[in-house]
Amino acid sequence: MSFPQDLASAALAVNARLAQALNALPDSRVRAAMAHAIHGGKGLRGFLALESAGLHGVPPVAALNAAAAIEAMHAYSLVHDDLPAMDDDDLRRGRPTVHIAFDEATAILAGDALQSLAFRLCAETGSAPLTAALAQAAGAAGMVLGQALDIEAESAAAPLTLEQIIHLQQGKTGALFAWSCTVGPLLAGADPGPLSAYARALGLAFQIADDILDCEGDAATAGKRLQKDAEAGKATFVSLLGLEPARARAAGLISQACDALAPYGARADSLRDAARFVISRDK
Amino acid sequence: MSFPQDLASAALAVNARLAQALNALPDSRVRAAMAHAIHGGKGLRGFLALESAGLHGVPPVAALNAAAAIEAMHAYSLVHDDLPAMDDDDLRRGRPTVHIAFDEATAILAGDALQSLAFRLCAETGSAPLTAALAQAAGAAGMVLGQALDIEAESAAAPLTLEQIIHLQQGKTGALFAWSCTVGPLLAGADPGPLSAYARALGLAFQIADDILDCEGDAATAGKRLQKDAEAGKATFVSLLGLEPARARAAGLISQACDALAPYGARADSLRDAARFVISRDK
Repeated sequence: MSFPQDLASAALAVNARLAQALNALPDSRVRAAMAHAIHGGKGLRGFLALESAGLHGVPPVAALNAAAAIEAMHAYSLVHDDLPAMDDDDLRRGRPTVHIAFDEATAILAGDALQSLAFRLCAETGSAPLTAALAQAAGAAGMVLGQALDIEAESAAAPLTLEQIIHLQQGKTGALFAWSCTVGPLLAGADPGPLSAYARALGLAFQIADDILDCEGDAATAGKRLQKDAEAGKATFVSLLGLEPARARAAGLISQACDALAPYGARADSLRDAARFVISRDK
Repeated sequence: MSFPQDLASAALAVNARLAQALNALPDSRVRAAMAHAIHGGKGLRGFLALESAGLHGVPPVAALNAAAAIEAMHAYSLVHDDLPAMDDDDLRRGRPTVHIAFDEATAILAGDALQSLAFRLCAETGSAPLTAALAQAAGAAGMVLGQALDIEAESAAAPLTLEQIIHLQQGKTGALFAWSCTVGPLLAGADPGPLSAYARALGLAFQIADDILDCEGDAATAGKRLQKDAEAGKATFVSLLGLEPARARAAGLISQACDALAPYGARADSLRDAARFVISRDK
C-alpha cells in the first residue's frame, strides 16, 4: 500500500474508536461540537502512535486507545487555538471552526471535554506512566507553553530568532509528536531513544513544512486560512531562512529522521514514508 | 481540631504539592496565571480526597497527588467558567478572575494547562483506573455536561424543573465531588458504595447551599458576584422550593450523608464535620 492509503486506513480505525467513545457520552450540543472538531483530520499523530506501538508488539486495543487519545488531544488544541481570543480562525479542515459552527462557549467546553476524553482513552491503555507522559506533553511545559509563546510573539517588540522559533515549535507541535512516536517503547518498557530522535527531527520538519505551506500553499486545498504569519509580521522558518533553504533544512531533517530508525530496519519503512509525506503534503 | 482547622491544614499540604508541581514547569505567563487560579480556594475537594484515602490506608504520597489533582481540576473549571463567553465573572475568591488579572488567551491556556496538570498528578498515583474515572467525571458525561446544561438554561424558553436542576448539578459539581470522595476505595480496590452515597447527598446539599448563598449571602465575604441567578431569571433550588424548604432539604441531605458513613464508624467523623460545614459556610 502507498503511504496515503496506510494513513487513511489508520485514520479509519482511529476515527471508529473515537466515534465509539463519543457515542458512549450523553447526547448534547457539546458532544456534537466534539464530533465536528474530530472530523476531517489527517490522523497523522494517530498513525504515528499505531506504528510505534506495532514496532513494540503492543496489543491492538491499547494501541488504538493511545492513537485515539492523541487525535482527541490534537482536536482539542485546534478548537481552542481557533477561538477569537486566540488565533481567531473561521476555517479549519475545510469547514467552519467550532465556535463558528456552534458558539464560543460550546467551543471552549468541547475543547475541554476533548482533553478529558484524550486522558480517558489514554488511561484505558492501563498505563499510568503513559498517561503522565501525555499530560506532560500537553501542559504548560509542552503544547500549552508553545501556544503561549506563539501568542506572545504576536505582540513582541522584535520578531523571534531562529532559536526561539525552534523552542516554540518544540512545545507547540513537537511535544505531541514525541509522545505519539514513543507510545510503543513507553508501553513496552523499551528504550524510546531511536523513536524520540525520529520524532524530534520529524516535528521540526513538519513545522517548517507548515510555514512553507502558509507562505505558498492554496487555502482551498489546505482547508484553512493561510498567509497568516506574514500578515501578522511574525517570524517563521521561511522568513528567517528563505524559502529554498527552509525546504533544504526540512529535507535534511527528514533524512535524519529516517536514519534514526536504523535499529528497526525495514520494519520502520512506514514511518520513513510518513516522514517523507510530512514535507510533501499540501494541507 | 475543629473542622476549619482540619480543612486549612489539608489545604496547606495540597497547596504545597501544587506549588511544587507548578515550580517544576518552565517560568511563563501561563504558569503565573495557573498559580493565580489555584490561590485562595477552600480546598474542600482535596480534603475529601485525603480523608477518603485515609479511611482506606492509601499511602500519603498517592493521596496527596490525588488531592492536588482534584484541586487543579476544580481551579481549571473556575477559570473557564468565568470567561466572558461563559459566565463572564470579574471576581473569584475575592480577587480578579484570571482573564481580568491577565488576559483572555492566557486564561484559556491556563485552564487548559491546569486540566493537563490535574491528569499528570492523578497519573502519578500510579493508578490508570483512578485517572480514567477522573476523566469521566471531568468530561462531557460529567462536569462539562453540567456546565453546558447550565449555559443552555440561560437561553431556555422555560425555567428548569427541579429534576432538571438536580441532573445539571450532578454533572456540574456532583461528578468531581463523587470522584474526590471515592479516591480511597478506588485506589484500595474496596467497595466505593458508602462513600458514593455520601458524595451524592453532599454534592446536592452543597449546590443547594450555593443557591442559598447566591440568594442571601454577602458578596464581600463570598469573594464572588452574587444574585446572578435571580438576575438571569434562572431557576434555582431556592426559587423552586423557597428559602426555608431549601434549607430543610439541605439539612436532610446532610443527615443522609452522615448516615451513609455508618460502615466507617467514628473514623469518618471528619467527613461528617465536612458535611455539616458545607451547609453552614458563608463563602
